[in-house]
Amino acid sequence: MEDMAGRGPGSSGLAYMVVASQAVGLAVILVTGAWMGVYRGGLAWESSGLQFNVHPLCMIIGMVFLQGDALLVYRVFRNESKRSTKILHGLLHALALVIALVGLIAVFESHKKKNAPDMYSLHSWCGIVAFGFYLLQWLLGLVLFLCPGASFSVRSRYKPQHVFWGVFLLLLSVATALLGVLELLLFKISDTYSSLAPEGVLANMLGLLLVAFGALLAYVLTREEWRRPPLAEELALSMDFKTLTQGESPVGSH
Amino acid sequence: MEDMAGRGPGSSGLAYMVVASQAVGLAVILVTGAWMGVYRGGLAWESSGLQFNVHPLCMIIGMVFLQGDALLVYRVFRNESKRSTKILHGLLHALALVIALVGLIAVFESHKKKNAPDMYSLHSWCGIVAFGFYLLQWLLGLVLFLCPGASFSVRSRYKPQHVFWGVFLLLLSVATALLGVLELLLFKISDTYSSLAPEGVLANMLGLLLVAFGALLAYVLTREEWRRPPLAEELALSMDFKTLTQGESPVGSH
Repeated sequence: MEDMAGRGPGSSGLAYMVVASQAVGLAVILVTGAWMGVYRGGLAWESSGLQFNVHPLCMIIGMVFLQGDALLVYRVFRNESKRSTKILHGLLHALALVIALVGLIAVFESHKKKNAPDMYSLHSWCGIVAFGFYLLQWLLGLVLFLCPGASFSVRSRYKPQHVFWGVFLLLLSVATALLGVLELLLFKISDTYSSLAPEGVLANMLGLLLVAFGALLAYVLTREEWRRPPLAEELALSMDFKTLTQGESPVGSH
Repeated sequence: MEDMAGRGPGSSGLAYMVVASQAVGLAVILVTGAWMGVYRGGLAWESSGLQFNVHPLCMIIGMVFLQGDALLVYRVFRNESKRSTKILHGLLHALALVIALVGLIAVFESHKKKNAPDMYSLHSWCGIVAFGFYLLQWLLGLVLFLCPGASFSVRSRYKPQHVFWGVFLLLLSVATALLGVLELLLFKISDTYSSLAPEGVLANMLGLLLVAFGALLAYVLTREEWRRPPLAEELALSMDFKTLTQGESPVGSH
């Protein structure tokens, strides 16, 4: 909060929106947990039926909540050094990937135990596209932004792509979660869903919360006035660097 | 093309991306038509079964393709006057709304004829949210940007909101379409979907094309260098206007 309130106009608006996004994000996780706990029998790694339930919870925590929060760090920690913010961003994404991987293992193992087919539905196709590109984006970010060696020119050309695809992959992950919610409902309660069974209403509310989470994150991440302003020392550094390497004025490079 | 190639750096990249978006958008419409024609018996307003098939086609044309193209006009017609581009933008959205309304009537009437329940699924909940906010956004745009009377300060404060929610509602419409594709498949071919029946594969491909359309549109609309630059006369006009009304420099208002 202190970081957000500290700099630039409209930063208090940013603080409210970040708090709202966290409240909605935690509600998404809690409702998913309640859905699995109350209506789907809870979680257990060794049982094929209950092992499946690990899948929605892990994907929501990893591919939605943590992926989203990893993008928010550049808005929340506006006054920290770029390097430590970058490392936090990379670590949150790494944690998101590990948790999502556990969620993927859960669904493939539970299908195998039940002899159920894999990878035929639109949910699974969108999910594998989202996860594959997310992993690729993480690796590219690691190599180009965290490892030394990439030139300033490569970094500054890739950066807008990294930012755009980061937001897009978060929204694709939210859309994939919506598909997963609908698919599970039509598999499990197809006979009572149309009479507004409580489980169906709860899961539909989860869907709307997911949409709200995506909207809040996209809003915070695309507001121009909430972008992380370069700190004075970064501006000076990149100015020296750019002038040395390209002989250009750095105006407009941030 | 001439308009896009005419101004600013990177405009030829914009032209390629717009052509790609139109190719993918037309493929989305054609594949939806083929799905309804080949696997779902075609379209007919008077039959309850075939009247339903009007729904996916109209929603895809209205809420996805035309809504998307209405947003693109500011990138495609970069050298036309702001007023005529605005009118085209409003007209394309109006056409999209009318076609989507026909699609909504088709689904409600076909449900009524079959005595089938309405508005219980996540697809329908997301759809009604997307359509409701889309209509609201169109009305606000009409009143604030096309009707005379709204002050410069109200317009310039609402504009970034209008732009953000415009892109978000397009992506929500794409997500709702994905939910509709999955729902229809699980209603109609739940017994053969898991063995990769041709209809399921075709509809899954439609889903991936929808994701690609959303990605291309979001990419074109969010590139800073492809934003419509204000024409010289607009800059002069708004400078006079802003100076007269607010006594501020117009720098940064575009």
